[in-house]
Amino acid sequence: MKILFDANGGDNAPFEIVKGAIDARNELGVEIALIGNENAIKSSLDELNETAEIVNATENIENNEEPAFALRKKKNSSTVIGLSLLKEKKYDAFISAGSTGALLAGGLFIVGRIENVKRAVLPTSIPNLKGSTLVIDSGANMDCSEDLLLQFAKMGDQYLKINGIENPRIGLLNVGVEEHKGNSLTKAVYPMLKESGLNFVGNVEARDISLGVCDLVVCDGFVGNVMLKNTEGTAYFVSKALEKLVAKSNLSQETLKEVGSLMANAKKSLDYSEVGGAILLGIKEIVIKAHGSSDSKAIKNAAKQAMSAYETKIIDKIEEIFSR
Amino acid sequence: MKILFDANGGDNAPFEIVKGAIDARNELGVEIALIGNENAIKSSLDELNETAEIVNATENIENNEEPAFALRKKKNSSTVIGLSLLKEKKYDAFISAGSTGALLAGGLFIVGRIENVKRAVLPTSIPNLKGSTLVIDSGANMDCSEDLLLQFAKMGDQYLKINGIENPRIGLLNVGVEEHKGNSLTKAVYPMLKESGLNFVGNVEARDISLGVCDLVVCDGFVGNVMLKNTEGTAYFVSKALEKLVAKSNLSQETLKEVGSLMANAKKSLDYSEVGGAILLGIKEIVIKAHGSSDSKAIKNAAKQAMSAYETKIIDKIEEIFSR
Repeated sequence: MKILFDANGGDNAPFEIVKGAIDARNELGVEIALIGNENAIKSSLDELNETAEIVNATENIENNEEPAFALRKKKNSSTVIGLSLLKEKKYDAFISAGSTGALLAGGLFIVGRIENVKRAVLPTSIPNLKGSTLVIDSGANMDCSEDLLLQFAKMGDQYLKINGIENPRIGLLNVGVEEHKGNSLTKAVYPMLKESGLNFVGNVEARDISLGVCDLVVCDGFVGNVMLKNTEGTAYFVSKALEKLVAKSNLSQETLKEVGSLMANAKKSLDYSEVGGAILLGIKEIVIKAHGSSDSKAIKNAAKQAMSAYETKIIDKIEEIFSR
Repeated sequence: MKILFDANGGDNAPFEIVKGAIDARNELGVEIALIGNENAIKSSLDELNETAEIVNATENIENNEEPAFALRKKKNSSTVIGLSLLKEKKYDAFISAGSTGALLAGGLFIVGRIENVKRAVLPTSIPNLKGSTLVIDSGANMDCSEDLLLQFAKMGDQYLKINGIENPRIGLLNVGVEEHKGNSLTKAVYPMLKESGLNFVGNVEARDISLGVCDLVVCDGFVGNVMLKNTEGTAYFVSKALEKLVAKSNLSQETLKEVGSLMANAKKSLDYSEVGGAILLGIKEIVIKAHGSSDSKAIKNAAKQAMSAYETKIIDKIEEIFSR
């Protein structure tokens, strides 16, 4: 398998991307190619005493650019060139730590959707007390129909299966556990999930996700995004509130420091951006979104994700499900 | 002013309700009446060596009952009789720690909406690092139109003004701060809020609420409810994660205990159910929802809320705004 790495995108590009790709080649045995500013990639390779195939791409799409517009404007971006080469099957997977929006839009418009799949999604994994829960959708699709939510559930189910969860428990994010609860969207999709053949465990309240009541929670991208950002805000609030209380307590300076660092770790354990890359679900080729802050280790882990997607043929499996 | 207290509703009914009402009479100088099981109220009054006006109501609507159905079925409930007496202007306010759903539905169907107000809402106050933020709607109205959200903003604005906030900053809950962000609902209501004459501060992300970026955050009841419940779940997760880390650390048993109790307090500072009662906005009389777990002090505080609503004529003010 041959993976194309986007050396333009991400906070630590190009060096950490290049290093991660080299590590993936050395440790995982994949073929690699790097796309981005040729000179910058060469310098990084020189620093590492390595060589690799380079594809020149002079432009980069930034996080603050409107995705669809940027894709049209920046034809020489690593995103546009990289995804085009992927579509032409020159490579087996594309990994990028660049703009999520551009990758999602490019996945749809350049690579193309799997037949009968209506939208592409990025599964987001959040930690719970027993492991982790996948959230789909976490922000790609704002207004969703019940058909879309059912598709999210089906794609997420496959994703979890290739990640080793045998019979993923699928929950519907709702304001109560009773079947009749919710808004018109959840009421419409509930019976569809029930009859889908998936392991549907019913409605799930946001407060129970951290208890690990399901492996996948399905929601529209607006609600999912609000929930994830609220998680960040709440963790921040609790840590600040504790900080104030600890400062007023009789604990020694040394203990204060230790508690502070433990709290920082507790907060970090909740940071979904730390969890690793994710595959873009619903498109015809393997595209992995690595986090913006990825270092070489995260990039190597993203390569592992790409390999697992390749070996387990997740694209074929999703194609099969949606061809029925 | 004369307040009717629901002695049937709430986890600590009737005694704490009766005691709270008596305290309100003694300390705040209001007239009181108690509605509920006559004998139970009498016993509580005897225990306190007090007397008060009693209205007998043999039934109680439980939290797990479907509100509209329960209101039709339980004609002798304190909710149905109490709200009917309020509508007849026999009392100036009704305070209940019973079923929220029944109170909301009863407020609408028995007391009646203010003209041109489409739905009733219960504002929920959540703490932030600088004070608190009001969330409307936090779960009463699942599917909302842009007109509804604008009404929530207007009613919340008045509510905050009578609670001493001069020029409330009103935010729209969204997935990004840019004007073009969001779903079809937020996109439709954004320009309406902008031109409303309210102090609209734009889109607000869930993670920034705890920073105190606005005094009121407007959203549909589904999203608001998910957000509040996620706050609970996240606070629980962070405290458990810290607990595990602290247990594995080298801190002494004594310190462990102290940190544990500080963490419990930090978590509690986030508990929106601790914040006190709230007035039902949009209906023609003063109805205060006290929390299910209210003790006498919380009931007395709810009476203070009722007095403030009465003195500041919030109903008249909302009527005036919506008559324009």
